Amino acid sequence: MKKKIALLHGAGYVGGELIRLLLAHPDVAVTTVTSRSFAGDPVTAAHPHLRGQTSLSFTDPGNVELSGVDAVLLAAEHGKGAQVVVELLDSGFDGPIVDLSADFRFKDAALYDEWFGFTHPAPELIASFEYGLPEVHAPYPDGTRYVANPGCFATALALALWPVSRHLDTFRASVTALTGASGSGARPKPTTHFPTREGNVRAYKILRHQHLPEVRQVLGPGADVQFIPASGPWTRGIWGTAHVELPPDVRPSDVDTWFHAAYDDKPFVRTYPNELPELRYAVHSPFCDVGWMVSGRTLVIGFAEDNLLKGAASQAIQNLNLLMHLPETSGLISTDLAVTSAYS
Amino acid sequence: MKKKIALLHGAGYVGGELIRLLLAHPDVAVTTVTSRSFAGDPVTAAHPHLRGQTSLSFTDPGNVELSGVDAVLLAAEHGKGAQVVVELLDSGFDGPIVDLSADFRFKDAALYDEWFGFTHPAPELIASFEYGLPEVHAPYPDGTRYVANPGCFATALALALWPVSRHLDTFRASVTALTGASGSGARPKPTTHFPTREGNVRAYKILRHQHLPEVRQVLGPGADVQFIPASGPWTRGIWGTAHVELPPDVRPSDVDTWFHAAYDDKPFVRTYPNELPELRYAVHSPFCDVGWMVSGRTLVIGFAEDNLLKGAASQAIQNLNLLMHLPETSGLISTDLAVTSAYS
Amino acid sequence: MKKKIALLHGAGYVGGELIRLLLAHPDVAVTTVTSRSFAGDPVTAAHPHLRGQTSLSFTDPGNVELSGVDAVLLAAEHGKGAQVVVELLDSGFDGPIVDLSADFRFKDAALYDEWFGFTHPAPELIASFEYGLPEVHAPYPDGTRYVANPGCFATALALALWPVSRHLDTFRASVTALTGASGSGARPKPTTHFPTREGNVRAYKILRHQHLPEVRQVLGPGADVQFIPASGPWTRGIWGTAHVELPPDVRPSDVDTWFHAAYDDKPFVRTYPNELPELRYAVHSPFCDVGWMVSGRTLVIGFAEDNLLKGAASQAIQNLNLLMHLPETSGLISTDLAVTSAYS
Amino acid sequence: MKKKIALLHGAGYVGGELIRLLLAHPDVAVTTVTSRSFAGDPVTAAHPHLRGQTSLSFTDPGNVELSGVDAVLLAAEHGKGAQVVVELLDSGFDGPIVDLSADFRFKDAALYDEWFGFTHPAPELIASFEYGLPEVHAPYPDGTRYVANPGCFATALALALWPVSRHLDTFRASVTALTGASGSGARPKPTTHFPTREGNVRAYKILRHQHLPEVRQVLGPGADVQFIPASGPWTRGIWGTAHVELPPDVRPSDVDTWFHAAYDDKPFVRTYPNELPELRYAVHSPFCDVGWMVSGRTLVIGFAEDNLLKGAASQAIQNLNLLMHLPETSGLISTDLAVTSAYS
Repeated sequence: MKKKIALLHGAGYVGGELIRLLLAHPDVAVTTVTSRSFAGDPVTAAHPHLRGQTSLSFTDPGNVELSGVDAVLLAAEHGKGAQVVVELLDSGFDGPIVDLSADFRFKDAALYDEWFGFTHPAPELIASFEYGLPEVHAPYPDGTRYVANPGCFATALALALWPVSRHLDTFRASVTALTGASGSGARPKPTTHFPTREGNVRAYKILRHQHLPEVRQVLGPGADVQFIPASGPWTRGIWGTAHVELPPDVRPSDVDTWFHAAYDDKPFVRTYPNELPELRYAVHSPFCDVGWMVSGRTLVIGFAEDNLLKGAASQAIQNLNLLMHLPETSGLISTDLAVTSAYS
Repeated sequence: MKKKIALLHGAGYVGGELIRLLLAHPDVAVTTVTSRSFAGDPVTAAHPHLRGQTSLSFTDPGNVELSGVDAVLLAAEHGKGAQVVVELLDSGFDGPIVDLSADFRFKDAALYDEWFGFTHPAPELIASFEYGLPEVHAPYPDGTRYVANPGCFATALALALWPVSRHLDTFRASVTALTGASGSGARPKPTTHFPTREGNVRAYKILRHQHLPEVRQVLGPGADVQFIPASGPWTRGIWGTAHVELPPDVRPSDVDTWFHAAYDDKPFVRTYPNELPELRYAVHSPFCDVGWMVSGRTLVIGFAEDNLLKGAASQAIQNLNLLMHLPETSGLISTDLAVTSAYS
Repeated sequence: MKKKIALLHGAGYVGGELIRLLLAHPDVAVTTVTSRSFAGDPVTAAHPHLRGQTSLSFTDPGNVELSGVDAVLLAAEHGKGAQVVVELLDSGFDGPIVDLSADFRFKDAALYDEWFGFTHPAPELIASFEYGLPEVHAPYPDGTRYVANPGCFATALALALWPVSRHLDTFRASVTALTGASGSGARPKPTTHFPTREGNVRAYKILRHQHLPEVRQVLGPGADVQFIPASGPWTRGIWGTAHVELPPDVRPSDVDTWFHAAYDDKPFVRTYPNELPELRYAVHSPFCDVGWMVSGRTLVIGFAEDNLLKGAASQAIQNLNLLMHLPETSGLISTDLAVTSAYS
Repeated sequence: MKKKIALLHGAGYVGGELIRLLLAHPDVAVTTVTSRSFAGDPVTAAHPHLRGQTSLSFTDPGNVELSGVDAVLLAAEHGKGAQVVVELLDSGFDGPIVDLSADFRFKDAALYDEWFGFTHPAPELIASFEYGLPEVHAPYPDGTRYVANPGCFATALALALWPVSRHLDTFRASVTALTGASGSGARPKPTTHFPTREGNVRAYKILRHQHLPEVRQVLGPGADVQFIPASGPWTRGIWGTAHVELPPDVRPSDVDTWFHAAYDDKPFVRTYPNELPELRYAVHSPFCDVGWMVSGRTLVIGFAEDNLLKGAASQAIQNLNLLMHLPETSGLISTDLAVTSAYS
């Protein structure tokens, strides 16, 4: 008997990916999808690629019936996620929640004012959410019910640098990373206008992207991450590099050990020693690819992921699996490998 | 001494191309560019690629001073062009005008209600405009001062089929043609949203594109043109095919003669016998490329052009050259050929 | 207990898609993959996107052990498929075979000389293969063991026109269709060189594409299909249009009936009445999308599919499912619909 | 009377751009173009976009007649340029030469063994070539006849970092830069295969790109440049970032002064204070765009150029202009500005 999942605010790109993944999930089934603007319409009105695969229709979020629902995935916009959580808890829902918005990622509520420009409406709930980068934070403490799913750039940068931050007290990482247009959402914008985007690269929020506090929260205060985000001319995927100057006593083999120790038993991180990963193999996959190379005292790290999957939807299902005590890879990796994970 | 040109409503993509071309024109100079939304800003605010090349600023269209201006290029939106022309003439301007909007293309004012959804504000002026597809309509009658510059699809379809329409009393052309995202203008739309457009093809206004009446006006009532317009995943350029069933007595060599006779002395149409042209060689060029192939009674015609150039800006300058009695190719073709034209 | 599948010559793009699909298939498992050039290498050497998902290595095709194998998928190049089939049968293999090459598609062996430039090495085997466009040809006759999997363009054109060919004794279809670069295979060619392909459309094999005889074989002699194939600037997917002039007595509602009757119970064809399908919803899916519109006596039909999936790999698995008496959609559609099919 | 230019080995992408630019040049004319593989063919066989613009045909390089030629542009492959120069000088040609190959860029001949894998055939000629990044090295010494035109990445990196290197004795620059597929030339390669390149980013020659010695030669030994080159999914253009840690006593306004002092009088470098340039405005232009931003002790620099223009063809013509004592911008910038340059 499959567990029942409600997806709240599921009309965006990440919502579409969540439904696609859930339809193929062997252990859970999506039974409810809400959307304000598409209420009453078939799910395929917002997600035409799902035609021929689902008979679900969108429910009005004000009208949603959650009795019988085992867990909730929440894909509201930043600033709305917290309100929806408050309403959910007020309604008596007490199952697992994975929130894909940014609203419970920061431990310090004041950061929302500074980085997102809104005052957090329910700071008292923040402590009940675990920040959920599974490779770093799982297994979650016993009794964890709520997970804040990391941001797309935050996932990639944190996974690229975490093996370093565990071994160097302080370091400076010079990061440049490019993301695809789906990262800006389904609403047309000047920066996603085709003639503007095709054949173009454009840096934005230079040294002040809102995912930086997440990265710092994961890596700790010793990590000085200088980050140039940029938009690239493709739809899906994040690709980037980090330059780190190593202390004189670190050998290349030490760095290899750092990365292998961090990720060899993690099914969703593929490692590339002495190589930087290409973007395309990560796209349409639930993996974050991480490679590295050392030359003298220079360490360069490369990373690639699908911003809608490991950067959002598949990571949310990875978290859902963990919260529901399902195999971590369930519904995400089709394999003939004996996939192992530290937590499953 | 260069002639002075005013470009009215020059903040869009076509406006940017017009300014770029005019900066390189040996015989004319752009001295005024208007824009409502950019009034007072440097031209490079709307057209950053022109940085380092021009010191012009946009003038408010309500404030424009046309004394000393020798000719006007008008790149207003459809439905606004006619109003601007009325104001121009009211102000006493009596030089040449090339209107790039659709507003003076149809000889029958009622077509505007039907195809564009507005009632023409100055039907009495329509007769004073020549419809200006130079390869078909030039040389213009003596004294012509006003030219309606053809639409982008209309230019391509009319040039592809005109050699046929001169020789067959009736024929049916089954046309499919794809255009780039710049054809939709500089304002972001759902159909030009990068994730929507990349790797996609989408038909629209199927069998009812607003350029069809122009094509029929050029080709005459014997041409039954069935046209599927579609959007393709690129920024610039129109590429398409036409299938025509030939009468039994037409030989392949007849068709060759039709096309060569039509275009061999026209500098802006490059012909490809027994071949269909690729899109990319026409893009960033002022040419319309036309190829054809006959197999049995099937004639297929291929065509390619840059929608912003031969489909708009470079054709407007071609018309401006003709109206000002300059060489037809001036400012448009850099060549070591003795470029000839029937009209220059 | 999953059935065991051997994939012969699985290092190309279609091979990579077959392995990906088979890894997720609930009823069968791929246990052998051959490749001459990659023999001994892990499957991920040719298909890096499968890293983290499979431990298979390529076997030398000269060395392959098929005892215990329940069925074979054959993805050799055109002209090699027949040789491999001969060797397979000589070796005593008597399970189902789906051949993705062109070598058993034509009923008339002489067509190979004419359209592919080689003399068929085993014409006596042709009759034992069913041409396998399931929507048209399934259920296959009892005892069918061998299926020739249709070509990518052939699948799309045949599915678009089959509902017409069943109702009109003769008709002429003017087809223009564009395909992605993956259709040319994994080996770099001038026509798939990025600077050549990006932003370009190029017609090729105009009116003489080698998939035409397949289309005619499906549709019958009354169908006069004039086909301009073209290459488009994307990696995956076929999109095209067909114009058909209808006899005077056909009403729009007749046409609707033709298409609905043909496909309403076929899970892999999605229909779009009074609309032409976009390319992008078909890409990365096992569906062929077919839409149509009637205006006067003009019928236009649009079609879209993923050339590597419905045009190759997923259709091969659809055929494999049928040959092995599995549900037709097994491993291909993840759905909450009660998927029905005429044959499963 | 225009000066006569011979272009040797002009069948590649850079050759095509050189011819296009020379056709529009007011002061010089291309009269000879050589190519081994296209000898006897019209120039448009290799450069179809030039159809309708030139009647030139390729000459066999073994047969070329240079009497009457005023200057030579040389676009041979790396390793062939030096041989051609030797033959040119042996033949008695004594006019200006701009060599676009790498063969005379390094002052130290031994670097060719190390970075290009060949032994320089004419090391005695190296001293007679000026390394020609005009913004840094012009005006060239009186009597300079030969210029080695810089590499594409070298141009961009050197222009981005030169203002820093003039003011900091030592600094470390962490650079990531992406280039388009035209940078790999006209021959198809696995890395320029469309399905490989589209939607992909791939790092290569990590920390060991062969343009690094050029950059070091320009910037001097105090510059420690760590460079990750990558290929991006577009045809034209280089875009990149550099991170530099500033000494504590440098103020943001100092940095502004460095860049303005370096480039305010240079017509081909456009500066972007407190901003990083987008790729697209530099593409199809002869400009290198350079922007910078300071935050605390972090300086980030962004740069963008067209690899075929400022990275090759237009810079070669800029050098040709300088060698022939023509205005530096002649044939390259169409402008209504009083374009100034320190050297013209």
